[in-house]
Amino acid sequence: MIQFNCDYTRSAVPEVLEALCNAKSQYAGYGEDEMTNDAARIIRRLTGDESVAVHFLLGGTQTNSTLIAAALRSYQSVVAAETGHINVHETGAVEALGHKVTVIQTENGKLSAEAVDEFLTANEKDPNIEHVVQPAMVYISNPTEMGTLYSLKELTALAEVCRRHEVMLYMDGARLGYGLAADENDLTLSDINRLTDAFYLGGTKCGTLFGEALVIKNPMLKRDFRYIMKQRGALLAKGFLLGVQFETMFRGDSMEDTLYFRYARHAIGEANKIREALKSEGVPMLIDSPTNQLFPMFTDEKLRNLQEQFVFDIWSPTLVRIATDWSTRSEDTEKLIKTIRK
Amino acid sequence: MIQFNCDYTRSAVPEVLEALCNAKSQYAGYGEDEMTNDAARIIRRLTGDESVAVHFLLGGTQTNSTLIAAALRSYQSVVAAETGHINVHETGAVEALGHKVTVIQTENGKLSAEAVDEFLTANEKDPNIEHVVQPAMVYISNPTEMGTLYSLKELTALAEVCRRHEVMLYMDGARLGYGLAADENDLTLSDINRLTDAFYLGGTKCGTLFGEALVIKNPMLKRDFRYIMKQRGALLAKGFLLGVQFETMFRGDSMEDTLYFRYARHAIGEANKIREALKSEGVPMLIDSPTNQLFPMFTDEKLRNLQEQFVFDIWSPTLVRIATDWSTRSEDTEKLIKTIRK
Amino acid sequence: MIQFNCDYTRSAVPEVLEALCNAKSQYAGYGEDEMTNDAARIIRRLTGDESVAVHFLLGGTQTNSTLIAAALRSYQSVVAAETGHINVHETGAVEALGHKVTVIQTENGKLSAEAVDEFLTANEKDPNIEHVVQPAMVYISNPTEMGTLYSLKELTALAEVCRRHEVMLYMDGARLGYGLAADENDLTLSDINRLTDAFYLGGTKCGTLFGEALVIKNPMLKRDFRYIMKQRGALLAKGFLLGVQFETMFRGDSMEDTLYFRYARHAIGEANKIREALKSEGVPMLIDSPTNQLFPMFTDEKLRNLQEQFVFDIWSPTLVRIATDWSTRSEDTEKLIKTIRK
Amino acid sequence: MIQFNCDYTRSAVPEVLEALCNAKSQYAGYGEDEMTNDAARIIRRLTGDESVAVHFLLGGTQTNSTLIAAALRSYQSVVAAETGHINVHETGAVEALGHKVTVIQTENGKLSAEAVDEFLTANEKDPNIEHVVQPAMVYISNPTEMGTLYSLKELTALAEVCRRHEVMLYMDGARLGYGLAADENDLTLSDINRLTDAFYLGGTKCGTLFGEALVIKNPMLKRDFRYIMKQRGALLAKGFLLGVQFETMFRGDSMEDTLYFRYARHAIGEANKIREALKSEGVPMLIDSPTNQLFPMFTDEKLRNLQEQFVFDIWSPTLVRIATDWSTRSEDTEKLIKTIRK
Repeated sequence: MIQFNCDYTRSAVPEVLEALCNAKSQYAGYGEDEMTNDAARIIRRLTGDESVAVHFLLGGTQTNSTLIAAALRSYQSVVAAETGHINVHETGAVEALGHKVTVIQTENGKLSAEAVDEFLTANEKDPNIEHVVQPAMVYISNPTEMGTLYSLKELTALAEVCRRHEVMLYMDGARLGYGLAADENDLTLSDINRLTDAFYLGGTKCGTLFGEALVIKNPMLKRDFRYIMKQRGALLAKGFLLGVQFETMFRGDSMEDTLYFRYARHAIGEANKIREALKSEGVPMLIDSPTNQLFPMFTDEKLRNLQEQFVFDIWSPTLVRIATDWSTRSEDTEKLIKTIRK
Repeated sequence: MIQFNCDYTRSAVPEVLEALCNAKSQYAGYGEDEMTNDAARIIRRLTGDESVAVHFLLGGTQTNSTLIAAALRSYQSVVAAETGHINVHETGAVEALGHKVTVIQTENGKLSAEAVDEFLTANEKDPNIEHVVQPAMVYISNPTEMGTLYSLKELTALAEVCRRHEVMLYMDGARLGYGLAADENDLTLSDINRLTDAFYLGGTKCGTLFGEALVIKNPMLKRDFRYIMKQRGALLAKGFLLGVQFETMFRGDSMEDTLYFRYARHAIGEANKIREALKSEGVPMLIDSPTNQLFPMFTDEKLRNLQEQFVFDIWSPTLVRIATDWSTRSEDTEKLIKTIRK
Repeated sequence: MIQFNCDYTRSAVPEVLEALCNAKSQYAGYGEDEMTNDAARIIRRLTGDESVAVHFLLGGTQTNSTLIAAALRSYQSVVAAETGHINVHETGAVEALGHKVTVIQTENGKLSAEAVDEFLTANEKDPNIEHVVQPAMVYISNPTEMGTLYSLKELTALAEVCRRHEVMLYMDGARLGYGLAADENDLTLSDINRLTDAFYLGGTKCGTLFGEALVIKNPMLKRDFRYIMKQRGALLAKGFLLGVQFETMFRGDSMEDTLYFRYARHAIGEANKIREALKSEGVPMLIDSPTNQLFPMFTDEKLRNLQEQFVFDIWSPTLVRIATDWSTRSEDTEKLIKTIRK
Repeated sequence: MIQFNCDYTRSAVPEVLEALCNAKSQYAGYGEDEMTNDAARIIRRLTGDESVAVHFLLGGTQTNSTLIAAALRSYQSVVAAETGHINVHETGAVEALGHKVTVIQTENGKLSAEAVDEFLTANEKDPNIEHVVQPAMVYISNPTEMGTLYSLKELTALAEVCRRHEVMLYMDGARLGYGLAADENDLTLSDINRLTDAFYLGGTKCGTLFGEALVIKNPMLKRDFRYIMKQRGALLAKGFLLGVQFETMFRGDSMEDTLYFRYARHAIGEANKIREALKSEGVPMLIDSPTNQLFPMFTDEKLRNLQEQFVFDIWSPTLVRIATDWSTRSEDTEKLIKTIRK
């Protein structure tokens, strides 16, 4: 069986495995080693902002909940699209920290500046304001859980709304590599840093064994962040393992030079081929997603047929998610396309 | 100005004040006194179930969050109507305890058995089940925040769904007196106890100075409940003050005999008069609510006119809430009706 | 049986009951009424600081945990004497909010400036600092749980240490009335306000039916405090009940003029008589406590004898707590003394 | 500089790195793969109990707090030695989940059955029982933070006390490998499983890149454990990475056959050599610890001298921790011994 169900089916890109095998010396613990410093320095440089704090955490749920814990006071909430990962697929991790996730309905997984403005304005006018949670942060994912992307124009508008209402803006970048490498993307790391208070560059789904690189610009969020990491089990004793992996992935003169980008670009290429095939075969898709996730709606017969060789993520009897990633083999893509066309 | 905006504008029914003034002896602390025992015994008798635990707490938000804290494990959620008090007007008290409030859209503030069944069934089939919070309790309010009531048939169906899916059912009875006293009500205290795992008889809005009487049938919820009360600041040092008030309100051979019911019946009578006037004047209403809360939609001019003498709860520029209560004076009701008819 | 076991055995001073019976008009909800404003204004005046925020909460555990929740970030702790109420008798309410109570051993229930300085200095030098909770507030009670009092000199030194280490200082004043009225007290309300970030004037144990008046000076603690109160069930719907009671207790040109002080002074007078009798009879005492709590160590026989007529709080087979309060009857005190002397 | 300061300075044993490099196929996500199943099966077999649940988590703090969160209701506490890791070096992670860590003073880092019995008995007799947190679990570490070990006799006695008082017993085995491999150890994995409700076999400090294998016997703790892991960020997307590592470490017919044991045995051998040297040189030690951690008290001069070549963990100006581990090179041990003897 060939898995196209998600983007975390294989260990890590060969360069990362090699770097880990070569890391034979002794390191300081808890991320206070030189390798981790190097990785942070490299990411600061790519971001074009020497003032940001860079922390390496282990996975997406942990990164989201640790950052959100640092941001909110007890009576404050985080605003998300109804489809947002923190709302639907983290077993209530944000609520477990004491905070409501206030949701806004969307059609494409993206929060529009207008919808957020309308919500925040209504909240500020609520006469029972102290009886209602206080929104203090907007959470977006980019790419979203539906594979869609924010444009520079959209993110700029959203950031402006957040600034005006004095709420923070945080971007979950679990698949940011696949976003940056998408054909239609017009955001740079520098734009993202300029427009958000914090964001992360996902490693787990983009080629490392594990790990996410969290970039924090807002000074309030930087404060004592390592305490919060430690308290939440997010400070790895052998933190240097994260340093080694991210140094390997982000070394390079520009984002386009990095292994991170180049492997993501490969995944996008494979997705593009599948998307073309689906379109030319007239398979309807839930949404037009330009990244590594596709949402075709196959007929029952076609789906059964495909499932003899391929594993997909089943969202409903007729809707599946197909994901490519850095490890997708072109021969597997070809096989899939051939079966789709049959 | 005459307040019709809510049902907690005056202190307490005279009999309660008198009982408090007569309570001059020394009592044991923290509700371990005879007066509190008496009040609990009386409520058990009215409920027709000697096995229930009765605890007296201070207010609605506190009662809801303490009971829900006792019910849920960390990854479990409580299901509520989107308009449910715990979802909208408790500043995220449930989330502050670590639990998601999972909401279902409704038109009339009531959760139907069908909607809950559909939601719970879908949840049980979710292939990512461990990534999603686990619903473990259904919260309803009766009367609802929109003044509507559950019928015996509706509550029976809902209870059956909960039992089938092994989730608990809890009824917020902040205004239960006004529900029991409504013309169209067909639920007895014994029905409510039989069909739910826990419910409370609201005092604050129904004639006491403060306090709610929580009735717990489910043995799992009874366990160590006083620990949880104490931890959450809900164990009043002078607990006997609650005993004195509830003993006064619930003394009687049957519910209909109690001061609690008779004062609620007064409020319903006043609401009925206002409802009739609104109907005969052709004022549209958001919903047909049979209890002490009415939701007329006045014209701008009419509203401005009324607001010269009366205070309402303003829900939107054209929608107001009018509430009567045990303390509503018939002359004030007459004045209001006269002004509506003008 | 005559109860000398605690200071919350009777309802309220007659003037408070009378004021509640006279409060017949309609009030705004949730403490936004004029009566509550008046009570807050009066307390601000007695404190001599127009800038403080005054909030009325329902009980001690609730007040402590709500204030501490407002003060600490998730990884921060509150430092207390091992005997501190938050450490031993609130069922872990502070921990339930996510915070460690870091304890310092004491002999008399008081935290000395030296002990706190030593602890905070050691913490700041800890090389594993991010692996250890960060102390951010010092909690003291005055009078302490052992009936002892802070002098102006002691509190000044402690405040100086807190300021130097940039931690907040909070005083639990559940029995502050009995502290202010004690013969050896040299602290004024103005001193306490000047030297702490927040403190409360306890009502429950000092003559009201219930309620505590929290005085907040530190602007950081004032922020959005009503949200936190509401979330924690500490915002009473009929908040005016607290306003009525505290306005009655604190009306007056100076603290000495208030009912609060005068009733406390009565309790101190009764305690002084009992203390004298214990001393003259040679009954050893655990500690020399100048307030309304005494800790005699009776012989087994003497204790059994006393327990025929009197209820004490039993701390160990040979150690009991005797408490007087505003409601202690002089004839009961006389009976107790007579029995002690027998 | 040669690091003897802790046991997490190098990546992983070569066999683990090799296994990771060879894991090139696609795996199911979140630990639902065959490799993880194999690793769990192997550990169940070594434990001699097919009924236990085995979960793989990422680090010690995460494992402790996730297991404790599963065990305790909101008002319950965990009892630990004052030196216990959860009490001193996890930034209040247990309290962040809402639970008090109740501490007992010890001299050697171990909780004796007598001390625990005395504490639990006193708690059960507390007349204010509902005002005090309810102890529900005893936490021990083995080896302890001071390098000491529980004997079979001691653990049996402690387990009996826990059973009698109906509290659970949990063993933190961050360094369990070094405990099992110590000369004076008389506990088997089967004993530990029989006497505790849950324990973990630490990987991070004993030869894996990261990861801990949690073994749960108590059915109450098993319930829905993966939900809690996911909520707390402890369910690794590429869970198979843990499966690969633990399968490699624990493969073998008996514990003595496993890489886990053999590498631990190496560390013990190196520690034994250093201990002998310290003893023969008359260097006093804080405690007689039979595992991989030693606590010598050097003179100032000697320490300065050693610090020219070696890094230790500095506990106080005169007390250091020396730790060996699976990666300690015999030539480095020789150098250290030579310098000690100089």
